[in-house]
This record gives sequence, structure tokens and C-alpha cells, in this order.
Amino acid sequence: MACEKKRLAELAALVEGELVGDPEVLIGGVADFDSAVKGEITFVADLKRGARLEECKASAIIVPLTVIEISTPAIRVKNPYLAMARIHTLFVEEPFIANGIDARAVIGQDCHIPAEVAISPLVYVGNRVRMGQRVTLHPGVVVYDDVVIGDDVVLYANVTIGHGCLVGSRVIIHSGAVIGSDGFGYATDGNGRHVKRPQVGVVQIDDEVEIGANTCIDRATFGKTWVKRGTKIDNLVQLGHNVMVGEDSLLVAQSGLAGSVTTGNNVILGGQVGVAGHIHLGDRVMVAAKSGVHNNLEPGAIVSGMPAIIHKNWLRSSAAYAKLPEMVLELRELRRKVAELTKGKDGSLDKQE
Amino acid sequence: MACEKKRLAELAALVEGELVGDPEVLIGGVADFDSAVKGEITFVADLKRGARLEECKASAIIVPLTVIEISTPAIRVKNPYLAMARIHTLFVEEPFIANGIDARAVIGQDCHIPAEVAISPLVYVGNRVRMGQRVTLHPGVVVYDDVVIGDDVVLYANVTIGHGCLVGSRVIIHSGAVIGSDGFGYATDGNGRHVKRPQVGVVQIDDEVEIGANTCIDRATFGKTWVKRGTKIDNLVQLGHNVMVGEDSLLVAQSGLAGSVTTGNNVILGGQVGVAGHIHLGDRVMVAAKSGVHNNLEPGAIVSGMPAIIHKNWLRSSAAYAKLPEMVLELRELRRKVAELTKGKDGSLDKQE
Amino acid sequence: MACEKKRLAELAALVEGELVGDPEVLIGGVADFDSAVKGEITFVADLKRGARLEECKASAIIVPLTVIEISTPAIRVKNPYLAMARIHTLFVEEPFIANGIDARAVIGQDCHIPAEVAISPLVYVGNRVRMGQRVTLHPGVVVYDDVVIGDDVVLYANVTIGHGCLVGSRVIIHSGAVIGSDGFGYATDGNGRHVKRPQVGVVQIDDEVEIGANTCIDRATFGKTWVKRGTKIDNLVQLGHNVMVGEDSLLVAQSGLAGSVTTGNNVILGGQVGVAGHIHLGDRVMVAAKSGVHNNLEPGAIVSGMPAIIHKNWLRSSAAYAKLPEMVLELRELRRKVAELTKGKDGSLDKQE
Repeated sequence: MACEKKRLAELAALVEGELVGDPEVLIGGVADFDSAVKGEITFVADLKRGARLEECKASAIIVPLTVIEISTPAIRVKNPYLAMARIHTLFVEEPFIANGIDARAVIGQDCHIPAEVAISPLVYVGNRVRMGQRVTLHPGVVVYDDVVIGDDVVLYANVTIGHGCLVGSRVIIHSGAVIGSDGFGYATDGNGRHVKRPQVGVVQIDDEVEIGANTCIDRATFGKTWVKRGTKIDNLVQLGHNVMVGEDSLLVAQSGLAGSVTTGNNVILGGQVGVAGHIHLGDRVMVAAKSGVHNNLEPGAIVSGMPAIIHKNWLRSSAAYAKLPEMVLELRELRRKVAELTKGKDGSLDKQE
Repeated sequence: MACEKKRLAELAALVEGELVGDPEVLIGGVADFDSAVKGEITFVADLKRGARLEECKASAIIVPLTVIEISTPAIRVKNPYLAMARIHTLFVEEPFIANGIDARAVIGQDCHIPAEVAISPLVYVGNRVRMGQRVTLHPGVVVYDDVVIGDDVVLYANVTIGHGCLVGSRVIIHSGAVIGSDGFGYATDGNGRHVKRPQVGVVQIDDEVEIGANTCIDRATFGKTWVKRGTKIDNLVQLGHNVMVGEDSLLVAQSGLAGSVTTGNNVILGGQVGVAGHIHLGDRVMVAAKSGVHNNLEPGAIVSGMPAIIHKNWLRSSAAYAKLPEMVLELRELRRKVAELTKGKDGSLDKQE
Repeated sequence: MACEKKRLAELAALVEGELVGDPEVLIGGVADFDSAVKGEITFVADLKRGARLEECKASAIIVPLTVIEISTPAIRVKNPYLAMARIHTLFVEEPFIANGIDARAVIGQDCHIPAEVAISPLVYVGNRVRMGQRVTLHPGVVVYDDVVIGDDVVLYANVTIGHGCLVGSRVIIHSGAVIGSDGFGYATDGNGRHVKRPQVGVVQIDDEVEIGANTCIDRATFGKTWVKRGTKIDNLVQLGHNVMVGEDSLLVAQSGLAGSVTTGNNVILGGQVGVAGHIHLGDRVMVAAKSGVHNNLEPGAIVSGMPAIIHKNWLRSSAAYAKLPEMVLELRELRRKVAELTKGKDGSLDKQE
């Protein structure tokens, strides 16, 4: 563990929680509910999942405000997930170790790299690259010419940052992610051949963004593809050229945004979601997993399905979908009955004529 | 070819098949039906596909038991695919060549690496890594600190194994796959900002697992993400944190399992399938390509669609879906007729009142 | 910029467009409509998007033939995208710089590599590899044994080309793409265990193909997986073993073709499309984003949905889908009314008996 033991009272203060029980209990680490032991703290997010507090072997528990009585020392908070994330981070955070530039890394010319970095063997850095303080480049990272990287950035193994791209501070990019590949842009000639349109823009990644393994973010045709502050992107996600993702958004694994999609802040896209080109998603839009969005969405919209519709309507439509075969039969039966009724009626009408 | 010629009788014995014709025919290799020539063996899995046995130029054919008469020397077996896989493997299997550790690889401290390995140039191995016998690491592989690798493992180019992860024996991992990236876990504060939850678990890959190119398997938040013995994973698949995939399962390309999904054994997920978080799939569940699973599934369930329903029901629902516009028109027509009928009837009722 | 200034008349001649205004205007670069300044040329593809020509600050504009009056110097063409692509390419194209083979690259034995190449540090090239003129290999590229690469090929960072694969001329492959991973082929034994079928074929990439970042193309079981001339493949696409994609096709991001799919020429697959194994798509087939194709498609077919149906039918079915809950209610109401009507009628029939 990266830090010394803490008194429970200190931890409660850190997360602005209410201390329950002995403030002097010493905590040296964090574990999940089932495996936590003496000396550790754990949490329950929600009593509905059936956690039996009395079975917990941890020295302390973070609990939601709804827990009134508890015999174990505890911290009561509004959001146990958040408190747990903060306390856990406190215990696991390692101090930065400035190993400098390994002799087996390849560094280009005219770079600006402070002494306080950790550049691994087998890293490639091009020319005129500028880095902030405490940048960590893992083995196999390739940083092309003219890239700018902020402070406290971590690029894991085999990440690629294309030429001229901008990476903010406190950005984390996981293994195999590709930032700044060419956008998928062609003009088709009279013979059906696709002529490449030069992709001369860049990618800009703002502060506190995290990007998952093997995710791809294409550079803009002109200007920039842009991921704003605090947005978190999962693995195997695709962002096309000139996409702009707002702040504090979550893009779950295997989702894809076609070229020139723009979003507001605090947007959430589920896994395997697709958004068609040039669409705008307003602030706080939520798109359920596997949905396909073809229309602009107002702030706060919650949608599902392909094409995506308002989520609560989709729930009803998809339930009805499962009953479509019955509906077909019922419709047939109704048709038969109505035909019979009409025949009877027509018969009487005929007589009337 | 890696082995010398074999008598047809030997091959028949290897696959426990029934020899038809000359046992002394010499076979030196394997090819597909259309390109096989003299000296080679080929196979037909199924006569329905129209293979004309008499046109085959191979010296021998592996055929299913349903083939009674055949003039070419043959091996009759229950499962020609399986027999072919075994015979083909016999001919192509290369003996392991222990090149040792290339001087241009980077190896950390306190590792346990036997002499009998093949570590290529431009490989990076961290500290305290332990490897079994006959491990092959291709160029660009990055193995982080404290990883444990079993016997006869092959990691292709640019594979990443994150710190502390466990790789069993006879595991094959294809180029660009990332094992042990951080799980996608955040707690959101009152301002909508996402606070990273430390991901301190590992990934455990059991024996005989094969993992496709650019597939990503996230480490657990606590504990382990776990792929059990004999499971085969295709390219570009996503396994979230704390996923547990049972034995002998098949996950086809671009499928994704959200966090904490668990499965039984012999599960098959089609291409581009998605499974929502915390779902359990029982033994032998089959999910058709592109489906989205939101509910736990009983052993043996076969499902399709988004949301996934029983496959045979989905077949009927999806057929009906294509006729929805007709249903709309028909419903309108019925409504008109019934309104007319009701009007007539109401008229007579009116009279009765 | 890679070339000197050009007279507007020269540019008009290059794209076979009609010159409007001063032929002597000097152009030194290209920019998009909103950011172009004096000395640059820009374009409008379509006046419907509301570009106000008089606000443009560029020295010249490429416009469609529908623009009759324009005060700025201009080039009138049938296809402004195409003209723009050609003029832009003229300005950004860099001459090839033959840096040769960097001393920190690893090159195998018996290779054929001309002097006129640019092989970066940290590149790995196996044995018996043959390259054409002006090949550029970026850092982290791994080229396995017996690969053949044509002229003017660019492989970006961390690309893998598997053993024996063939790459044509003027091919571009973006970072992290994997060409020649094993196909996903197993035979299952009586105990449900999956026995690997050797994958002994190769991948052939023809001239002028472009392949996106982290895309995977599996080698054939026997024979070859084949991408024909001029086809452009986006990021994170999956091509299974023995796939054959025709000429001049476009495969958008995250689409996947299962094993043995074949296509004609000029096919377009939208993002996240899936095509089932052994399907054939005829020339000029278009598949809308997120669709799943299970049946062979005739040339020129335009399809959508899962399972994919004719696009214009899908538009109507998907509109009806959103109204399914209303249909359910209406059907219930009709059933009630018809039951009432039938009851009345049955009553009279009863009397008749």
C-alpha cells in the first residue's frame, strides 16, 4: 500500500461523512465486502443487494445514509461509491518516480522534455514533442512529431499519438489506443474509385480524460476532433473525424460516433451504441446499449433502440415486438370474423337495396 | 511441412476412423477440397454442399459416416471437421525452437525465465515475471511486472499483459490484444464529475484459452476477471471488469460482456453480441449474432434479438416485423369496417332503446 | 505546404473545372469554408447547407455547377468533394524521403529491401521479406517472415503483418491494425472441447487499399483472405478467414464480416454492420449502419435492419415499430368490439337454428 494507516476519523473527514463508532480505529487498506478483513475498510452501496452488515469482517464500513443502526465502526455518506473511490485512491496512489528517459527509448530532435518524467525502453518520441511534468510513457508507446502532452499523463503500452495532436493534463490512455489516425474521408470519382481526402486536422484531448484500450480517435479533416475535460472513454470505442464530445461524458465499450457528431456535457452512451454523422446530442443525453441514433437529441433525452426512440416507449415497443406473432394471428382471426360479420351485414344491405 | 509422410492407416488410427481402400497410401500434407493434389488428404464435412467426390485429386478423403460408397481411399469418421483438425495439426506442428532471450529484448529484474524460451527482439518484460517452459514472445510484446505465464504459451506481436495478470499453459494470444487494462469504473460526484475507482484486481486466463487480435480484457476492480479453460475468444472482443467466462466457450468477434457478467461452460456468443452488466448465462447458452442480452438465461437457452428473446420466437417476430406496414394498413381497414358495423348495430340498438 | 503556389487556372485545369474570374489568382493552400483566408482555396459541396458565398475570405472557391453567379474567383465542377480532394492532395503531398533502414530497427535474414525505403527505429522485419520502392514503416511495426510488400506502402505505428501475407502497392495501413491473425476455426470434440483447426492460408491486400486503425483481418484457413483494389476499410473492422471483399468498396468503422463472406465491387457497409458467414453481397450493395445481413443480396440492393430487409421497407417497419404499443391497444379494442358484434350476430343466428 502506498500510504500509512489512517484513523477512521480522518477518513470520515476526507469524504465529509458522518463517523459512527470508534474514531481511533486504524485502517490500512480497502477491499470488497466479501474479502475484507480486520484492518481494512469496505463499503455497501445499497442494502437491497442483500449485504448482511453483521457478517462483514472489515474494521469499518462505508454505508449509505439509509443505514441507521450499525454495530461495526462506519462512515455514513450520501454516495458510498464516491467515498469509497476517494478513500481507495488515497491508499493505492503511488508517488511518481522520475526514472527519466531510458537509454533504450528513441527520442527525436528539438523536443522539450522535463527531467521529471518516466520514459520506458522501446518508446518512440518524434521531433519537436513537448511534455509537461511527470509524464509516464510505457514500452511500445509511439508519439509522433509535434505532439504536446500536459502534466501527469500516463500512456500505457503501445499507445499511438499521431503528429500534432494535443493531450491535456492528468490524461490516462490505455494500451493499444490510437489517437490521431486519419479520418475516413474519400471523394468518389465517376468510375466509382475513392480518392483520399487529406486529413490535416488534429485530435485534442482535454484534462482528466481517460481513454480505453484499443480505442481509436481519428484526426479531423480540418480543425480538430475534440474530447473535452473529464470525459471517460471505454475500450474499443471509435470516434470519427471532427467529433466533439463534451465534458464529463461516459462512452461505454465498442460505441462509435461517426464523423462530425457533437455532444453536450454529461452525456452517457451505452456499450455498442452508434451515432450517425453530424448528429448533435444535448447535455445529459443517455443512449441505452446497442442503440443507433439518427436524429439530434434534446438535452436530457433518454433513448433506446435502432432507430433510437424515447426509452420508455421503446420498453413498450420491444415488449410488443415479442408478441408480434400473436398479433398476426389475432389480426387474421379478427379479419375472418369481420369478414363474416360484413358478409352478414352486406347480405342484409343487399336485401335492402 | 513439419512431419514426414504418414500411411493412411496410421492417420485412420489417429482419428479412430474407419479405413476405406489401400492402407499404404502415403500422405504428406493437407489441403482443401478444390486445391488438394496427389499426396495430400482433404475432407468433405457434408455432402449437401455438393462436393463431387469423384472430382477430387487428393490421394485420400476424410468423409462422414453417411458416405457409403467411395472409390478414393478414405477415412470414414463421425466428425470430419475434428478428424481433419487433428490430422492437419499433425502435419503443420513445428517443434519448439528455443532461441532463448534476444539481446534486443528488455528484461526486468528478479524474473524467473527458463532457458527453453523464445523471446524476440523488441519485447519488454517487467520485474518479477515468471514464465513456464517453451514460452514464445513475439516482437513488441509488453509483459508488465509480476505477471505469471505457464508452459507453451504464444504471445503474438504487440500483445500487452498488465501487471499481476495470470496466463495459463498452452494459451495463444493474437496480436494487439490487451489483457489487464483498467476496468471502466467511476463514481460520480455532485457536480457530475467522474472520480476514478481504483482497479486493483487482475485477469486470470486459464489453460488452452485462445484470444483474438485486438481483444481487450479488463482487470477486476477487486479480485479477478477470469476466462476459464478451453474458451476461445475471437478478435475485437471486450470483456469488462470482473467478468467470468466458463470453460470451452466461444465468443465471436466484436462481442462484448459488460462488467461482472458470468457464464457457465460451453456458451456460444455470436458476433457483435452484447451482454449487460451482472447478467448470468447458464451452461450451453447460445446467443445469436448482434443480439443484446439483458436478463439471466437458463442453461441451454438459445436467444436472439435486442432485447434477446427465445430464438424461435424471434424468428417469428422478426418475420412479422417486416410485415408491420401491412399490419398497420390492415388494422386501419379493420377499424373502418368495425366502425361501420358498429354504427349499423348501434343504430339498431338505438332503435331498441 | 509541400508545393509552391499555383495559379487558379492551373488548378481548374487539374480538376477539369470551369474557371470563373481571374485566372492569375495565386493559391498556396487549402482550408475549410469557415477558416480559409486570403491565398487559400476552399469549397462548398452543396448550397443547401447554407454557406454564404459572399462571406468567404478565401481567394477562390470550388463550387458545384448549380452555382451560376459568384463574385469570388471560382472553379465550377460537377463534384466539388472530388476536386477539393485532388487540389488538397496536390498541396499537402510530401516528397518521399528515403531515410533507409534505421540502425535501431531489427531486420531478418535474406530480405529484399531496396535502398529507397524509410524504416524507423523499433521496427521488426522477419526473414525473407520482400519490399518494393519507397516503403515507409513507422515505429513498432512488425512484419513477419515471408511477407511481400509493394511500392509506396505506408504502415503506421504498431501495425502487424502476419507471415506470408501479401500487401500491394500504394496501400496505407493505420496504427494497430493486424493483418494475418489466425482465423477463428475450431472443431468440437465429443466432450465439447474445441480443437484448433490450423489456419495455413494468408491475407492478400491489393493495390490502393487503405485499412483503418486497430482493424483485424484474419488469414484464411486454406488459400487467402482477400481485399481487392481500391477498397477502403475504416477503424476497428473485423474480416474473418477467407473473406473476399471486391474492388472500390467502403467498410465503415466497427463493421464485421464473418468467415467466407464474399462481396462484389463498390459495396458500402455502414458502421457496426455485421454479415453472417458464407453470405455473398452483389456489386453496389449498400447496408445501412448497425444492420445484420443473413442472406445473399442481389447487386444494387439497399438494406437495413436486423435481420436486414429492403431499406425502404425497413423505414416503414421501424416507423410502425414505434407505434406498436398503440397497435396493441387498438387490437384489444377491436377485439372487444368484434366480440360484441359477434355476440349480437351469434344471438340472431341462434334464433335461426
